[in-house]
Amino acid sequence: MSLFAGIDLGGTTIAAALADLDGRVVAEAETATNSHEGPAAVIHRIGQLVADLAAKSGASLQAVGMGVPGLVDVPRGVTRFLPNLPTQWRDIPVADQLNSALGCPVHLLNDVRTATLGELTYGHGRATTHPLTMAFFSIGTGIGGGVVIEGKLRLGPLGAAGELGHQTILPDGPRCGCGNRGCLESLASGPAIASEGIRLMRMGLAPKLFDLVGGNPANVTPREMLASGDASTREVIDRAAHFLGIAVANVVTVLHPELIVLGGGVAELGDPLLIPVREVVRQRVGMFPTDGVRIEKSQLGDRAGILGAVALAVRGGMI
Amino acid sequence: MSLFAGIDLGGTTIAAALADLDGRVVAEAETATNSHEGPAAVIHRIGQLVADLAAKSGASLQAVGMGVPGLVDVPRGVTRFLPNLPTQWRDIPVADQLNSALGCPVHLLNDVRTATLGELTYGHGRATTHPLTMAFFSIGTGIGGGVVIEGKLRLGPLGAAGELGHQTILPDGPRCGCGNRGCLESLASGPAIASEGIRLMRMGLAPKLFDLVGGNPANVTPREMLASGDASTREVIDRAAHFLGIAVANVVTVLHPELIVLGGGVAELGDPLLIPVREVVRQRVGMFPTDGVRIEKSQLGDRAGILGAVALAVRGGMI
Repeated sequence: MSLFAGIDLGGTTIAAALADLDGRVVAEAETATNSHEGPAAVIHRIGQLVADLAAKSGASLQAVGMGVPGLVDVPRGVTRFLPNLPTQWRDIPVADQLNSALGCPVHLLNDVRTATLGELTYGHGRATTHPLTMAFFSIGTGIGGGVVIEGKLRLGPLGAAGELGHQTILPDGPRCGCGNRGCLESLASGPAIASEGIRLMRMGLAPKLFDLVGGNPANVTPREMLASGDASTREVIDRAAHFLGIAVANVVTVLHPELIVLGGGVAELGDPLLIPVREVVRQRVGMFPTDGVRIEKSQLGDRAGILGAVALAVRGGMI
Repeated sequence: MSLFAGIDLGGTTIAAALADLDGRVVAEAETATNSHEGPAAVIHRIGQLVADLAAKSGASLQAVGMGVPGLVDVPRGVTRFLPNLPTQWRDIPVADQLNSALGCPVHLLNDVRTATLGELTYGHGRATTHPLTMAFFSIGTGIGGGVVIEGKLRLGPLGAAGELGHQTILPDGPRCGCGNRGCLESLASGPAIASEGIRLMRMGLAPKLFDLVGGNPANVTPREMLASGDASTREVIDRAAHFLGIAVANVVTVLHPELIVLGGGVAELGDPLLIPVREVVRQRVGMFPTDGVRIEKSQLGDRAGILGAVALAVRGGMI
């Protein structure tokens, strides 16, 4: 049997999956990244993880796809800049090194663009019969994104197109990790929402949240803020959803996609996020009717990344 | 000789040009739109204008391309919604009617998307040897736009994608004609800039502008505001350029194009607009280096629309 491997390289964990041509996963494994050991050691461990999975399943590997947290030279399979890994990860020819270890083609891609490919191939995009135009927002610790134009992932010359979380939404807004002010990420990411919850709690404005998390700021997440039932913390989520809605409305106005998918941990809030986002898009897109634009929560949830890596392998890097 | 006709249908004027396969214009003419006479009369006049040009040049018409101020059903060549023409212009099969009159294929497209095609084919996009990704901002009475992804104009299901002027830049900003608040058009269009110049003049804060325009608000344009030398009106232009820069930065972050072209009357301000726009893009795009993104004033200026219509004809509607 011929199988395809998907790898999701994270700052703390490496996940690997083997799947068939249709994306059905037949085996999976995880291991710690331990990125301080350096690229050579980590790449060696990735190779072993995948080789072990393949050996156990008795399959021959056809291709490997790998999502990487940062910028990648896509055609060459070389890392460029991985903000969450040590600096020695710059300019590492990961694809070549894994190819030597595994003896099959290896394709690298930014992890959120990889998740976009997952959603396109095995999630909400699966059922469409024509080349789909969609945008994927991954809303978690940061906000990443991916843009698909008529079935083709938009990469740009550096594989860096689709950074939907770094659109300026509030020109004089909070400082963002990218150096800009008022990016969507600074307004609607998990830490942006939680920090405002912590402020409210500390100022005595979120008593139910205080009880729920035992007064411990480390336990404050958007999920707890929603669950608490405090009107004040619900307002924070509404406000974040409003900013997210503006970012979605702008992408809709520029590209008129058929599908917007919201993924990542914050999207798991579900309707309290989705309903205001849809409402803002209705209010703010005035140039054409938006009935044909679906705005949905990710169908793959936290599996989008690994299934996207499988899709990358199955497509042989043709994205 | 075989020639191609380009038509630019405006609210007040119809322009037509005949050109060869390389876009070299061999004959041109204009006439008043007089849209109150109704679509049938106007379409008849367009047909005559083009037929007369063709007869005088002794050429046979190969195809016609036409830019239309509003939404168009591109595949069918039918008008949908033309905000600056009377309502009876809704759902008019202009392409079929002109085809009957002229005996050659007729292709319809939104006028700013048409100008985008002009800039791509005969302007800044001409020299590129590979499929170009670019965005075109037309900054005049309104702000329209067009997006080209790897050489292909992004139309979307209603031919309405690329409305770059209706991105929300200031969430609580001024009311826009589209119904939204804080659209780029409400902040950086000709009327948005001029109205602020008029306010300054009336409040006694723009004495040089007052002298320059004889105190007449009807004479206040961005060009006069720049020429006056008042620091106050220069600040208004800086502010508009700043907002335009944010809109450009957002498009760059989402699509990582190689080229941004600023067209329309306001873009004719030149460096006082271009320099701050480039600076804002450098400041606000933090996710990847923007050295490879050219930001230029339209090479075709007010000829972008008519040459785009010629390009539409030459391409046989394959955009």
